[in-house]
Amino acid sequence: KAPKAEGEEGKKEEKGGKKNRAALKTPKGTRDYDAFQMSVRERVFDTIKACFKRHGAITIETPVFELKETLTGKYGEDSKLIYDLQDQGGELCSLRYDLTVPFARYVAMNRIKKIKRYQIGRVYRRDNPVMTKGRFREFYQCDFDIAGEYDLMIPDSEAIKLMTEILDSLDIGKYQIKINHRKLLDGFFAICGVPEEKFRAISSAVDKLDKSPWAEVRKEMVEVKGLEPAVADRIETYVQLKGSPMELLEKIRQEKLLESSALAMSALNEMDTLFSYLQCYECLDKILFDFSLARGLDYYTGLIYEAVLLGEEGVGVGSISAGGRYDGLVGIFGGAVPAVGFSVGVERIFSILEQRLEKEKDKIQVAETEVMVISPDKDVLKERMTLCNTLWKAGIKTEMLPKEKAQFKAQLDYALLNNIPLAVIFGKTELEQGTYQLKDFKNKDQVTVLKEQLVEEIEKRLPRFTTLA
Amino acid sequence: KAPKAEGEEGKKEEKGGKKNRAALKTPKGTRDYDAFQMSVRERVFDTIKACFKRHGAITIETPVFELKETLTGKYGEDSKLIYDLQDQGGELCSLRYDLTVPFARYVAMNRIKKIKRYQIGRVYRRDNPVMTKGRFREFYQCDFDIAGEYDLMIPDSEAIKLMTEILDSLDIGKYQIKINHRKLLDGFFAICGVPEEKFRAISSAVDKLDKSPWAEVRKEMVEVKGLEPAVADRIETYVQLKGSPMELLEKIRQEKLLESSALAMSALNEMDTLFSYLQCYECLDKILFDFSLARGLDYYTGLIYEAVLLGEEGVGVGSISAGGRYDGLVGIFGGAVPAVGFSVGVERIFSILEQRLEKEKDKIQVAETEVMVISPDKDVLKERMTLCNTLWKAGIKTEMLPKEKAQFKAQLDYALLNNIPLAVIFGKTELEQGTYQLKDFKNKDQVTVLKEQLVEEIEKRLPRFTTLA
Repeated sequence: KAPKAEGEEGKKEEKGGKKNRAALKTPKGTRDYDAFQMSVRERVFDTIKACFKRHGAITIETPVFELKETLTGKYGEDSKLIYDLQDQGGELCSLRYDLTVPFARYVAMNRIKKIKRYQIGRVYRRDNPVMTKGRFREFYQCDFDIAGEYDLMIPDSEAIKLMTEILDSLDIGKYQIKINHRKLLDGFFAICGVPEEKFRAISSAVDKLDKSPWAEVRKEMVEVKGLEPAVADRIETYVQLKGSPMELLEKIRQEKLLESSALAMSALNEMDTLFSYLQCYECLDKILFDFSLARGLDYYTGLIYEAVLLGEEGVGVGSISAGGRYDGLVGIFGGAVPAVGFSVGVERIFSILEQRLEKEKDKIQVAETEVMVISPDKDVLKERMTLCNTLWKAGIKTEMLPKEKAQFKAQLDYALLNNIPLAVIFGKTELEQGTYQLKDFKNKDQVTVLKEQLVEEIEKRLPRFTTLA
Repeated sequence: KAPKAEGEEGKKEEKGGKKNRAALKTPKGTRDYDAFQMSVRERVFDTIKACFKRHGAITIETPVFELKETLTGKYGEDSKLIYDLQDQGGELCSLRYDLTVPFARYVAMNRIKKIKRYQIGRVYRRDNPVMTKGRFREFYQCDFDIAGEYDLMIPDSEAIKLMTEILDSLDIGKYQIKINHRKLLDGFFAICGVPEEKFRAISSAVDKLDKSPWAEVRKEMVEVKGLEPAVADRIETYVQLKGSPMELLEKIRQEKLLESSALAMSALNEMDTLFSYLQCYECLDKILFDFSLARGLDYYTGLIYEAVLLGEEGVGVGSISAGGRYDGLVGIFGGAVPAVGFSVGVERIFSILEQRLEKEKDKIQVAETEVMVISPDKDVLKERMTLCNTLWKAGIKTEMLPKEKAQFKAQLDYALLNNIPLAVIFGKTELEQGTYQLKDFKNKDQVTVLKEQLVEEIEKRLPRFTTLA
C-alpha cells in the first residue's frame, strides 16, 4: 500500500543496532510496487492507453533528466521543487518535473509541426510528500497533448472530452472538471486594477483558493505580493463566480461583468465556442465554469482545466487530472507551435483501486503460470526439467519446484497458493507407460493422458486469445 | 535512430546565433524515442515479457533513485560511474546503476524468502556513450532473478535457459553464452599464486580480456595491481582455456589442471551439474565454457555468464545479456537470501531491429486509428464531432481533422498518409437521408450504410481480438 516507504522508516530504526547494514528504505517520497500493486497499475495504464489510442494518439519517450536550462523558467514558483543532478563534470542536468516541457523541447528539436501524442512516465518533485494521499516525490503522469495550428477550441474540446473518457473508464467515482481561461483571469485582474507585471504572481495566489480560505489568499496578495487592499477586495467578487457553463456565461453577459476588458470578452467568446463543442461530445454536464481556477504553472496561455474527485457530499477531495493551452512553450525552444493537453495523476487512482481490490487480493493470480509440473517421486528432477522444457517450447507458462527432491505436498501447495489452474503429475508408473496425470484444480478432475497428447489436452483447458480476421 | 541525440548537437551549434533559446538537445548519452522507435521498443518488451511470464515470474518496480548508501560498495571499480543527485537538503541519493542492487534491497526490506521476479526499467551510468553502438548513459535493462534457498544449479539453469529463450524469440542472430564460475576463478588464482586480497582486482583485470589483448591486461596486473610477473604468466595459461562445456570439463579433469584447489574442484562439480541440467533444457549447444570470463561487478559469488552476439565470422560483436549468482548481496541489507539472475541490455537489440524495420517504416501504422471522419462540406464541424463521439462511444478508434472548414483532399490525404483503414464520409445529402458512405481503403470499395447500422458495418471490417473461453 501507498505508505510503505514511510512505514519502512520505522523498521530502519528498529534495526538500528545492527552494524554494517545499509538503510532499509527507499528515499523520502518514493515507494516500491509489489506484484499486486503492479497488476493494479498495469490495469490503470491499459485503460488509459486504450483511451489515448481511441483518439489516434501515438507515443514517444524522453529521458528522465533534461539539461537544467531546458527546465529553467518554465514552472514559476514551483521551480524550487526541481531535483538537480550533482555536477560531476559535464552538463548540468535536472530530473524532469513534468512531461510537458520535455515534450515542447522534443517538438522544437525535431521541428515537428503537428503531433498528437501520449506519454506515460515518472516525474520528480521535491515536494512535501503525503504518501497516504498518493502524493509522492516520484510519481507517474499520463499525458496527452495536441500540438499544431488548428482551429479555435477544436483540439481543446477533444482534450477535455478525452479526459472525461479516461475518468469514466477508470470508474473511480464522481468528478467535476473546473474550467477557466488565462485571458479571462488577466482580463478581470486588469478590471480590478492589478498592475500587469503582477498578473502571474496574483494568479498563483488565486490558485491556492482550493486549499486555503480567501482571507489567507488575500493576505498573501497584499502582504507578500504588495497588492493594494482595495484591488484584492475587487478580485474577491470575481473569484466567487462559478457555475454550470451556459448559466454562468449568460449571467456574466447580462450583468456586463467583463465588458470593460476586450481580452476577457474574447476569452468569453472562446469559452462559448468550447461549450458548444463539449455539447456535441456529450460531456458539458461534467464541467464547472470556475473563475477561481488559476493553475500554478507559468506556461499556460489560454484555457485551463482541472478534474477534481468529488467526495460523499459532492465536495472536491483532490485533483486527479489537469491541463490547458500553452501556445508559447514550444516557441521558447524555437519554432512557434501552439499546443494543448493534460496530465492524469495516476498515483491517487492507484490508491483508490488498490484499496478496492485489496479484498480480492488472494484470488488474483499475480503470476500467470498455467501448469505446475509435479511428481511424488524424489529422483525424477531431470524428468521434471525435460517436461518443463517441452511445455515451455509449446508456449505454456510452466513452473516446477526448484528442489532436487521436492515433497509432493509442497508442490501441490505451491500450485494452490498461486492459483495455478492445472498440474501435470507423473511418477515411475506414468514414465513407464508414457502417460501423465492432468489435474484441473478448477473443475476438480484428473485424467490420464498420453505423452503425445499432453500439450493438446492442456491447451483445450486454457483460455486463449485469438485474432479473428 | 540511435545517434539522434548526438546529431542534435550539430543542430544546436547551427542555431547558436539566436538569442534566448534553450539548448535543443537531450543530455549527453541520452536519447528520445519517436513513435516508430517506440513501436519497435514495445515489440521487444512484449516478446521479453512473454518469456518471463512463461517461467511464472511476477514483476515489481522500485524508484529510479535510491539512497546513496544503498548503492555504495556494490559495483567495484564501476562505482565511479554512478550518478548522484545534488544535495538539496535531506537524504543523499543516486540514480540506480542497475536493477539488481535495488532488487536485493527490496527483498531484504520486505523480508522476502522466495521470489521469482522480472523488472523492466531504465538505469544510469556516467560512462562514455557510444550512441551508434547502442551504448547510452540512460538505458533499459530487463532483469530476471530467482531469490531463495533452492537446490544447487536448479535456478541457475532455469535462468540460462530463459536467457536462450529470450534471445531466440527476439531473432537477432547467432549468439553464444560464455560461462564461468567465481570460485573457479578464485581457485586458479590461488593455484597461480595470486594473494587472496588481490582476487577481485585481478578478476576485474581479467574481465577486460574481451576488449584488450593479453599483453595489456598483464601490464595492468603487474604495473597497476602489483602482481608478480611470474604469477601473471601462470594466469595466462588458465585464461586461454575455453571450449564446449563437456569437452573442456573432460580435459581439465584428465590434465588435472585444478586438482590442487578444493575450491576450484567443487566449482567444477557444480559446472558438471549445471551442464547436465542445460542438456535437459536443450540449450547446452549455446554454451561456451570460458575461463577468461570474469564479470566486473563485485557482488557475484558463483556462476557467471554473458551472452555475446556473433558477427559474420562467428566472432563476438558485443555483450547483450549477462548475469550470475550473488548469494551475499541480499545479506548486506539483512536476511541472507541467495539469488541468481540476469539482465538483458535491450538498447543494442532496439538498434538491430530498428535498422531491420527501417525499410517497412512507411507501411507501419504507428497510430492505431481505425476510422477517419470526413466531409466534403465546410460547415458541418459539429456533425463531424457528433459522429466522432458516436464512434468513440462504440470503442472505435476515430479521428477527424481539427479544422473548422477542412479541405476534402486534406482529410483523405491524412487518412492515406497514416494508413487508416476506413473512412466515414458524409455531406448534406447523407445527413438528410440518414446515411453515411463507408470507404474501405484496403479493399478499395465504398458502400452506403444506414446511420443505425454504421457501427456494426465498421466492426465487420475491423480485425478484433476476442477471448475464446
